[in-house]
Amino acid sequence: MLTIRLATAQDHDALWSIIQPVIQTGDTYMYAPDTPREAMLATWLADTKHTYVAETDEQVVGTFFLCANQPGLGAHVANAGYMVHPDQRGKGIARQLCLFSLDEARRLGFQALQFNAVVSTNTVAVRLWEQCGFSRVGTVPKAFRHQALGLVDTYVMYQWLGA
Amino acid sequence: MLTIRLATAQDHDALWSIIQPVIQTGDTYMYAPDTPREAMLATWLADTKHTYVAETDEQVVGTFFLCANQPGLGAHVANAGYMVHPDQRGKGIARQLCLFSLDEARRLGFQALQFNAVVSTNTVAVRLWEQCGFSRVGTVPKAFRHQALGLVDTYVMYQWLGA
Repeated sequence: MLTIRLATAQDHDALWSIIQPVIQTGDTYMYAPDTPREAMLATWLADTKHTYVAETDEQVVGTFFLCANQPGLGAHVANAGYMVHPDQRGKGIARQLCLFSLDEARRLGFQALQFNAVVSTNTVAVRLWEQCGFSRVGTVPKAFRHQALGLVDTYVMYQWLGA
Repeated sequence: MLTIRLATAQDHDALWSIIQPVIQTGDTYMYAPDTPREAMLATWLADTKHTYVAETDEQVVGTFFLCANQPGLGAHVANAGYMVHPDQRGKGIARQLCLFSLDEARRLGFQALQFNAVVSTNTVAVRLWEQCGFSRVGTVPKAFRHQALGLVDTYVMYQWLGA
């Protein structure tokens, strides 16, 4: 049973235990693999973001944020990022986070959800987002410096939330 | 004859005389039409940006910025924004700014230049960017709340800089 709630300052250690291994591999997120803890937490928990944690048995196993993807005249479109602890993969947690975030984005008044840079070689994520209702609406050539594969394409993925 | 140089604090009034009418119409930029002067100048001249002004006869007639479009593993791709004073349109200034920015982006070490949200109804800009070498690599449905037309699509436009 997954419980999802807003993150607090008490979650910093748990968040870093997820974010650090996720960015370290340099194959899914833009954040530099060696981004320092405080800089990374400041980004993930920025005032402009709604940041959530997901718990099972009182252990934080995943996190995501929602925020406006653009200011002003683009602020009806949300952006989001999701991370699951490497030890907790394959349990459907990312899917639950994504589905929860779609409802939450609607609740917050957003009309669409856009991912700006899904790494094309992250096929598990691409397939999952498609299963959750997202479409690929763009392909940016060589926009990600994959730490194992070199320059690879990124996808813009999008879902209208029907409001 | 257009002279392009880095912007300084002395350019604030001139910059606002360009930015304010450009954002006020709400048909080309995401920035809220009523964004206050200081917030807008702080954004346009942020530490993360290289901001330039273009002068003719010692009058500032246009401005643009260059910055990394993403952190870390996406920082080899630049982002840019251009504005020309409404009274100075039709003179090819935007084209000169764009061509200058392509050279400047290369000089700064960027390998590509990406526009995240070109408003699809801004056909003059779309055509100009295409003439300057950009391709449409994505279309985001209803991502811009056009002040006259309602929700319209935006384009992701992109150019590899060949490095």
